[in-house]
Amino acid sequence: MDVILKVSTDDLEGLVAKVSNILYKRDLNIEQNSEFVDKSENRFYMRTEFSGTNTKGLEKELKDALPSAHIDLLESRKKDIVVFCTKENHCLGDLLLKNHSAELNANIKAVISNHEVLRALVEKFDIPYFYVPVSEDLLKEESIKKQEEEILRLLSSYSFDYIVLAKYMRILSDSFCECFPSKIINIHHSFLPAFIGANPYKQAFERGVKIIGATAHFATSDLDCGPIISQDIINIDHTYTWQMLQRAGKNVERSTLARALDLVFDDRVFIYKNKTVVF
Amino acid sequence: MDVILKVSTDDLEGLVAKVSNILYKRDLNIEQNSEFVDKSENRFYMRTEFSGTNTKGLEKELKDALPSAHIDLLESRKKDIVVFCTKENHCLGDLLLKNHSAELNANIKAVISNHEVLRALVEKFDIPYFYVPVSEDLLKEESIKKQEEEILRLLSSYSFDYIVLAKYMRILSDSFCECFPSKIINIHHSFLPAFIGANPYKQAFERGVKIIGATAHFATSDLDCGPIISQDIINIDHTYTWQMLQRAGKNVERSTLARALDLVFDDRVFIYKNKTVVF
Amino acid sequence: MDVILKVSTDDLEGLVAKVSNILYKRDLNIEQNSEFVDKSENRFYMRTEFSGTNTKGLEKELKDALPSAHIDLLESRKKDIVVFCTKENHCLGDLLLKNHSAELNANIKAVISNHEVLRALVEKFDIPYFYVPVSEDLLKEESIKKQEEEILRLLSSYSFDYIVLAKYMRILSDSFCECFPSKIINIHHSFLPAFIGANPYKQAFERGVKIIGATAHFATSDLDCGPIISQDIINIDHTYTWQMLQRAGKNVERSTLARALDLVFDDRVFIYKNKTVVF
Amino acid sequence: MDVILKVSTDDLEGLVAKVSNILYKRDLNIEQNSEFVDKSENRFYMRTEFSGTNTKGLEKELKDALPSAHIDLLESRKKDIVVFCTKENHCLGDLLLKNHSAELNANIKAVISNHEVLRALVEKFDIPYFYVPVSEDLLKEESIKKQEEEILRLLSSYSFDYIVLAKYMRILSDSFCECFPSKIINIHHSFLPAFIGANPYKQAFERGVKIIGATAHFATSDLDCGPIISQDIINIDHTYTWQMLQRAGKNVERSTLARALDLVFDDRVFIYKNKTVVF
Repeated sequence: MDVILKVSTDDLEGLVAKVSNILYKRDLNIEQNSEFVDKSENRFYMRTEFSGTNTKGLEKELKDALPSAHIDLLESRKKDIVVFCTKENHCLGDLLLKNHSAELNANIKAVISNHEVLRALVEKFDIPYFYVPVSEDLLKEESIKKQEEEILRLLSSYSFDYIVLAKYMRILSDSFCECFPSKIINIHHSFLPAFIGANPYKQAFERGVKIIGATAHFATSDLDCGPIISQDIINIDHTYTWQMLQRAGKNVERSTLARALDLVFDDRVFIYKNKTVVF
Repeated sequence: MDVILKVSTDDLEGLVAKVSNILYKRDLNIEQNSEFVDKSENRFYMRTEFSGTNTKGLEKELKDALPSAHIDLLESRKKDIVVFCTKENHCLGDLLLKNHSAELNANIKAVISNHEVLRALVEKFDIPYFYVPVSEDLLKEESIKKQEEEILRLLSSYSFDYIVLAKYMRILSDSFCECFPSKIINIHHSFLPAFIGANPYKQAFERGVKIIGATAHFATSDLDCGPIISQDIINIDHTYTWQMLQRAGKNVERSTLARALDLVFDDRVFIYKNKTVVF
Repeated sequence: MDVILKVSTDDLEGLVAKVSNILYKRDLNIEQNSEFVDKSENRFYMRTEFSGTNTKGLEKELKDALPSAHIDLLESRKKDIVVFCTKENHCLGDLLLKNHSAELNANIKAVISNHEVLRALVEKFDIPYFYVPVSEDLLKEESIKKQEEEILRLLSSYSFDYIVLAKYMRILSDSFCECFPSKIINIHHSFLPAFIGANPYKQAFERGVKIIGATAHFATSDLDCGPIISQDIINIDHTYTWQMLQRAGKNVERSTLARALDLVFDDRVFIYKNKTVVF
Repeated sequence: MDVILKVSTDDLEGLVAKVSNILYKRDLNIEQNSEFVDKSENRFYMRTEFSGTNTKGLEKELKDALPSAHIDLLESRKKDIVVFCTKENHCLGDLLLKNHSAELNANIKAVISNHEVLRALVEKFDIPYFYVPVSEDLLKEESIKKQEEEILRLLSSYSFDYIVLAKYMRILSDSFCECFPSKIINIHHSFLPAFIGANPYKQAFERGVKIIGATAHFATSDLDCGPIISQDIINIDHTYTWQMLQRAGKNVERSTLARALDLVFDDRVFIYKNKTVVF
């Protein structure tokens, strides 16, 4: 079985030698190996994919050898995810299709939305769809609090690795984000850090830009400022209305999110402070 | 001889028919023709390249037929430019080389710099180089005023179509920019509107972006906010230090500026408010 | 109602004036207008979108005024399409999703496949699915002939504007292609003209390229050589196996086909000989 | 001083551990480390940048430990290069400028050309320029043989690491290429393997492509088929004449070659059979 080892640490001294020796003595066969030293943070990252059976006690052995390192020893397996969406289907639909044809390195356990619009689509694929609206009768903060409590209640009945915000057009509260650190992946309909906030395509139109982009990032309590996983762009020109920008933007949003999810689900992404290292 | 006609106007009614008829009756041969209606501003743009000799009185005839339109009737010719620079040679050097091999649709009349660093390079190509430093002895505002006065004095002895800021690392004053409306072209070392201001590569590094870009735009009194002519990007990753970003960025700065200058010097760019229409 | 006028012709003399005058006298309001003169073929292209009601007899008037021109006067409307596919769902799925959410400027009337694999997916969206296999019992040429006859019989019961080959992995016969000139749109899993023919991702892998691409083109009897509508690429590196190339390629195939279909369905594409003019 | 270790080998068994241990025991400090296993060739690549002084006897120790591996232990230093060119200055000029401002990780020792056109430019930068024409008086094969003998004679008086073909528009003979295996870097004015051979921009124009590209590769005796180092593209459309394609192509040729040279001069490129591994 394939195993992925991720190590990150401040302590550089002989780390590669130590890890390599441990794997070597156990006759484990390295399939892929990537390392990176971030000099600006004096931090070391290592990702190794290996095969072999002699892995009993390996995690403990590694932790004993590298007591200050952050070590993840992961079986290569499909991740479980819950998808949040609102009304647009281009990102959600891509996930449903790939899930259906087993091309997604994840299983969609449930879809949660603040609207009913996408229920019919999701249920075509026999995936549970939960409608959790934001009440209009309450004060704004109160209504968000209630909605998020309901979402948390729903989530508690699922085991999952990641929440994917596939064009979920509500801002999650700080406290919600803090429940799932490094577990929420968002697609932002803009080339961050340009056009933070609402209506980025309209902002882009008004600024007269010649390129628009999309950014997939981990969601943190600091809106639109979490660690960036992937970005992509498309060229546009003066003939685009902002509605055309929006339509064109959907293609780049979908492919940017797809790329980020491939990387995250394959355990290729490290997070440190506000940045990612991607192997 | 090739002639370029640029028309922009609020008055749409039958404009194409009127212009086409005038050219048709004079036996002028349309080589290229582009039109665009900006519905959001209810504004019409037209650019026509034609050949033929019967152009006497044409400009007057067009202006009489379209009294409220902005009309430019331009002989296709090389533009004259003055280039401003500071210490980096990647954009300036590209212009010098293309000027040398007659590939630039412009003639460089002079180079003005706030440093002496690039004199040797410029003088290799037999182009006048003027060193106009910012005095350190005066108050900041005073010193900029004096330096710009000296630059204006130098410029007054040249006839030129455009000023190209080829990595000129000083902010021009509002009053200077207002002397040359739609005549100053800047290359901004960032993907505007992200990373406005100083040290954009350091900002990009700290934000952990996966793409960096460059923006060529007309300089206006509103810093970094003038009409965008062209933008381009390159993909980067976590292995880039900010110095590496800067080095990688130079390629994209140079090609973005080159693209913008080709468009401007070929009379392909219209400016309206804060945006461009580029044919 | 919006109307699109497409004109192409060898006869340049005063064409814009003639067309503009006809529209102007009828009080038709030009919304968008593009023109292009292909000097290498001495051919003129014009596309005009206009609104207005006074269109009775317009087509005849235009044809009388421009007897040698090719004139299309098209109401702006959703196109009807039949989609061909084989086993992969990434292009088909995108069409089904956009059809479902009314984002495709076309209606999918039917899906035809040489395999049963995608039936379940298509029927989720309540679209007729026809399985037309290639018989294994006959000689190759004979079996293709029979299969295509069956497809033609099916098609005869539908009225449609275009056939979209959404990863249909069989070569259509010359005689089939000739039944639908300029009506069949194919997505080729390569950056034509590189890697013509089978297994382009394996060819790309073996050549060690650093970029792979996709090409959407009209299918003609000359395999992989029909007029190109759109192309796009992604960067890859030595870490990609050819299966990874194939997976990565799916994103670019899908977005390239989507772009081409937007252009064709909006009547923005002219074909002349082996090339396209796209406004 | 910084040192770069490059290892490639068929023998995977414990290689990382062995190398890491050797460096670790000598107190050498790993700055950057990359590894890759090419499963399709069962081949292992490793590049390590380290600092430290205890390197005496290191190469021998590594070779004793890994007898079947290919080992390069390289001081990080500027490479010496000879540049070949013909008439176009866009690639050569970029090298001259970067050489002048010490931004190139190489020193240009000499320029050799089959034309006199670029002498003036090269001599501005005080670099020796050698004109080695192909005689018109002899049979073709004979004249090439004589010209290449003259070039070889010139080269023999220089010590250099690489020959850069900066738009050298002659085909080098097999025997010449075989004199400098993995030492000749070419920029091909096309997106290989499309448009092999002469006049690729004209070929691209005639095929009606929507993207053109450039390829930097090592030159081998098999024309246009050597290992690819880097590729890049630009989008074009029907408005481009083939001369415009050529002009636009120059930007992408220059940046593609620049990127490849950065990689090669920083010792980041491995060659194996007909492919590269680039760290």
